[in-house]
Amino acid sequence: MKLSSKILKCELSPIRKFAPFAAAARARGITIYPLNIGQPDVETPREFFDAVRNFSAPVLEYAPSGGVEEYLDAVHGYYERLGLPVERGGILATVGGSEALIMALQCVLEDGDEILVPEPYYPNYAAFTQLAGARIRPIPTTPEEGFRYAERERIEPLINEHTRAILFSNPGNPTGNVLTRAEMHVLADIAVEHGLFIVADEVYREFTYGEDAMASMLEFEYARENVIIVDSVSKRFSACGARVGAVISHNAEFMTQVMKLCQTRLCAATLDQVGAAALYRVGPEYFAAVREEYMRRRDTAYAKLMQIPGVVCRKPEGAFYLMAKLPVDNTDNFQQWLLEEFEDHGETVMLTPGEGFYATPGKGVNEARLAYVLKQDRLERAMDLLALGIEAYNKR
Amino acid sequence: MKLSSKILKCELSPIRKFAPFAAAARARGITIYPLNIGQPDVETPREFFDAVRNFSAPVLEYAPSGGVEEYLDAVHGYYERLGLPVERGGILATVGGSEALIMALQCVLEDGDEILVPEPYYPNYAAFTQLAGARIRPIPTTPEEGFRYAERERIEPLINEHTRAILFSNPGNPTGNVLTRAEMHVLADIAVEHGLFIVADEVYREFTYGEDAMASMLEFEYARENVIIVDSVSKRFSACGARVGAVISHNAEFMTQVMKLCQTRLCAATLDQVGAAALYRVGPEYFAAVREEYMRRRDTAYAKLMQIPGVVCRKPEGAFYLMAKLPVDNTDNFQQWLLEEFEDHGETVMLTPGEGFYATPGKGVNEARLAYVLKQDRLERAMDLLALGIEAYNKR
Repeated sequence: MKLSSKILKCELSPIRKFAPFAAAARARGITIYPLNIGQPDVETPREFFDAVRNFSAPVLEYAPSGGVEEYLDAVHGYYERLGLPVERGGILATVGGSEALIMALQCVLEDGDEILVPEPYYPNYAAFTQLAGARIRPIPTTPEEGFRYAERERIEPLINEHTRAILFSNPGNPTGNVLTRAEMHVLADIAVEHGLFIVADEVYREFTYGEDAMASMLEFEYARENVIIVDSVSKRFSACGARVGAVISHNAEFMTQVMKLCQTRLCAATLDQVGAAALYRVGPEYFAAVREEYMRRRDTAYAKLMQIPGVVCRKPEGAFYLMAKLPVDNTDNFQQWLLEEFEDHGETVMLTPGEGFYATPGKGVNEARLAYVLKQDRLERAMDLLALGIEAYNKR
Repeated sequence: MKLSSKILKCELSPIRKFAPFAAAARARGITIYPLNIGQPDVETPREFFDAVRNFSAPVLEYAPSGGVEEYLDAVHGYYERLGLPVERGGILATVGGSEALIMALQCVLEDGDEILVPEPYYPNYAAFTQLAGARIRPIPTTPEEGFRYAERERIEPLINEHTRAILFSNPGNPTGNVLTRAEMHVLADIAVEHGLFIVADEVYREFTYGEDAMASMLEFEYARENVIIVDSVSKRFSACGARVGAVISHNAEFMTQVMKLCQTRLCAATLDQVGAAALYRVGPEYFAAVREEYMRRRDTAYAKLMQIPGVVCRKPEGAFYLMAKLPVDNTDNFQQWLLEEFEDHGETVMLTPGEGFYATPGKGVNEARLAYVLKQDRLERAMDLLALGIEAYNKR
């Protein structure tokens, strides 16, 4: 039997492909410090669990396809408090930010289309694009320039008659970049002038460590028909397992198409939407505490990284990732070696090799993404293990 | 901005498109008896809610992409008790049966491919097929023959070099058909001889009202590489809002591709999988009681339907649907009229017009699907409203 060539071309997740080797290492008694997965360790606010426990309907029914009323209200209120009012029809509940991305790209892309994505990018962007029959045209960046990309001269030459959209995460996964308002203006201008959608994955919105509050692509009134926001409670409230997100846009025609997709898969989980609605009741002190905690971790991870000779990395301003060029020949081989041959007092470390974050062949081979989602002391140890690992690897 | 032609071609769900007219009727004070939506009214077993309430991890983390261990164990055990052992790698957790279908078709179909589907079929099959770039080649049936289709002479002439799979639900939505073991043999034979996948949507497995236990496509050892099972807790345990299902197959290469898709969307909801695992602990007395209840409803709905002059319908053997030819010119117009102009003592009824269940233009225009998911007395009243409605509609 023949399988789809589109799916055959997709690769197993670069973030998860070392899982079997990690399991083998653990079986040998090795402790692994995971810097490879964006699973926050912050406690999920109890508002979620309370709401779920108080759910008292006798039948766990389908939710409306577009989302549970109280969840949509909560998201609506959240954006209103941010000064970014969205009409109710402009918000649809999705199964995490992942489904929001899948749906947005499925509506915007088809066979032969191209989408501009600054590389390095979140690897699933490539899979979702490919499954929609389109391809990524990468906007090139370098670690030396801190992976910045929002420049007209860099982007406009890449636009052709097949280009449909610009897709990016901001704050950036894997780079930790945060776009300035001026940079966002450039992107909005380009989108409007060339008739492109902007798919802005803003799921890390609360995780910024600069002076200014982060801007949202929703701020740019003149680009209101172009902008599609991908949102989620996963990182915002440390509720990744809830799988509740949203697609948000002022573009009514686009939202009608998304609604079709919402209807085909019937609904997102009812109970999790009820829990997610309750999460939006947490106060600003929650975000302040989380931000402070991650900022401290960012500082720790960055400082430790800078002590390793030969590392190239600009201080990231958001999310909970660092993307760095490491002084090794190949981070894929290095990770394999860390799991199979290295240990220090029975411990080793995992990161995510860089190649999977690039569309351009050969790029990222000596880069890696580090997720600083460990508590302070464990994070320090993880970074020390990385330094020891690099040293030992290069002395083989 | 251009939107994907694939999504533009999709239609809003025929099952849900009358929702605004129903809302308007309700606003006028009309009570609506819903025979249109497959939302069971049976209570969700408390095992689900207990498991969810007892969840005590402080962080609601991502589940493994392939599924929560205890849920996979539960599904595995369930199939073992059915005498249909599946290796653990042959089961992957999905976001309801819907995602199982989406993933299966995405792996099996691509642009230009065809899939054989007996019509009338569950309308979302068409959307999922279309989004995968393929098209449905319908296997024709008639209400007079009770919508039966599993015959070599009927199916083989439809196979060509583009055909990749046969897709059906059994017990059937919308027909209520249950395939005999002999009919399933025919389908298995055809699939093996022509190198086709069989995508068997068996989510209504427990809902059969004949003497024999229903067969599963998993029974046919010689077709083990061909068969893909779509499964879900939604109907089995009246837990539609949990959005927990599974793709099941002995075909390892196919399962590897499904795993790629599982990884891209990270996971199905963690808490709902924990609840779903607990559901599999309910005993056979649960299924016996539910089956008895639905059989009584089936009998009531069918008997009442047969009292309406001009109706064509064979007694269905499974699921909780009836598909009938009604003595009206057009069930779409009839439904609209039922919501906008008809009422009896302030009450009316909803069903699902038949056209959306067909790929062949013009077919199903005077057919409708009735879901008998109302308690006995309400079901009787709903069927009486239908009879009154048909009479009044034809006297206009």
